[in-house]
Amino acid sequence: MKSNTVYRTFNTGRRREFVRITEDVQSAVDEAGVAEGLVLVSAMHITAGVWINDDEPGIQEDALEWLDKLAPPSWQPPANDVAAALSPDPGDYRHHRGGEDNGDAHLKNLLVHHQAIVPVTDGRLDLGPWQAIFYAEFDGGRSKRLVIKVIGE
Amino acid sequence: MKSNTVYRTFNTGRRREFVRITEDVQSAVDEAGVAEGLVLVSAMHITAGVWINDDEPGIQEDALEWLDKLAPPSWQPPANDVAAALSPDPGDYRHHRGGEDNGDAHLKNLLVHHQAIVPVTDGRLDLGPWQAIFYAEFDGGRSKRLVIKVIGE
Amino acid sequence: MKSNTVYRTFNTGRRREFVRITEDVQSAVDEAGVAEGLVLVSAMHITAGVWINDDEPGIQEDALEWLDKLAPPSWQPPANDVAAALSPDPGDYRHHRGGEDNGDAHLKNLLVHHQAIVPVTDGRLDLGPWQAIFYAEFDGGRSKRLVIKVIGE
Repeated sequence: MKSNTVYRTFNTGRRREFVRITEDVQSAVDEAGVAEGLVLVSAMHITAGVWINDDEPGIQEDALEWLDKLAPPSWQPPANDVAAALSPDPGDYRHHRGGEDNGDAHLKNLLVHHQAIVPVTDGRLDLGPWQAIFYAEFDGGRSKRLVIKVIGE
Repeated sequence: MKSNTVYRTFNTGRRREFVRITEDVQSAVDEAGVAEGLVLVSAMHITAGVWINDDEPGIQEDALEWLDKLAPPSWQPPANDVAAALSPDPGDYRHHRGGEDNGDAHLKNLLVHHQAIVPVTDGRLDLGPWQAIFYAEFDGGRSKRLVIKVIGE
Repeated sequence: MKSNTVYRTFNTGRRREFVRITEDVQSAVDEAGVAEGLVLVSAMHITAGVWINDDEPGIQEDALEWLDKLAPPSWQPPANDVAAALSPDPGDYRHHRGGEDNGDAHLKNLLVHHQAIVPVTDGRLDLGPWQAIFYAEFDGGRSKRLVIKVIGE
């Protein structure tokens, strides 16, 4: 069994951002020299995620608007009454008692999930025609890491 | 290390449908001759998912009703005021500017997640007594693929 | 390729509970003698999940309050009007026709996801500094199992 472990660091300009990483993941597979196997793509932080979806800016804008309703930040006014009702009942996230302001980003991590696994077939990421891999930052503006782990033969 | 890659194509009669695939996944494991390993079950499309849950029609109806509230289609009226408030603020999904009407299915893909991994122990899918594997179609009526990738020994 | 399969049984005192299992997962890796590989941590029940996040009680309280709004139990009054509107339109979950009362827990399983995969590097779980692994029980008070499957070399 061969393996390869690659870390990538992000420091996004915006607090929330989708960063395409399909090519980084393919490079990690190429380096590993793996023809058949699996590659795990996993955020090492608890306020970020990995989403495999279409590389289409409209979808990403739709997703961010929607995630802000479902898991509302408390550092900005709620988007509407439903976002207000889905906000924490104590008035603010309990997590913020320690001085943080990213409680919403932990819930977005839960919704988006922090990782995905891609099959490797014949040395290539075995993705569908519209599948691209994105690192999803929900609390950016500081250095955060992602691990890419390839195993196979 | 052994591996086996199987593709399955779906063309569901209904726009949304849960299709049981537990037996297809076990067959891919049998073909691989793998006793100990992992099998990835992953939709190759961005408007579908994979859900491991009970094979009980009530749960699936509950889930579809609920997903239509959380991630409302714009090709039908919102189920209620909350679904309307969780719909995109521009009036329709930005993704639809390109002529699509499946913006909600991309968000359902995010919620359900497009994949699951099943452990293989002693040549069998190591599932709990009520766990069954479902392909979850959210934008059907056309040909879509899923990949099953077994690795192990 | 080496592998190791460990089952852990939970019987939580409370109906809903997060149980830290990071150390159990590391032990399964130690037993396997795997230096490079992957470890799957997967609930074998359909009303539980696995969440990798901060070991901070405030986050877990925030998450449980929020999950009860998004996927409302019908064995207690809805938290607010939004939770009522996200409850099933037939008045109760269709799944409850068979005598169950855990329909909400199946939807929480969908949101949280029932599994996570952790990379193993140099014999250690390759987690970020704040990442801890939790079994997330949504219908406890009875015996339930989780499987930990290590593969690698």
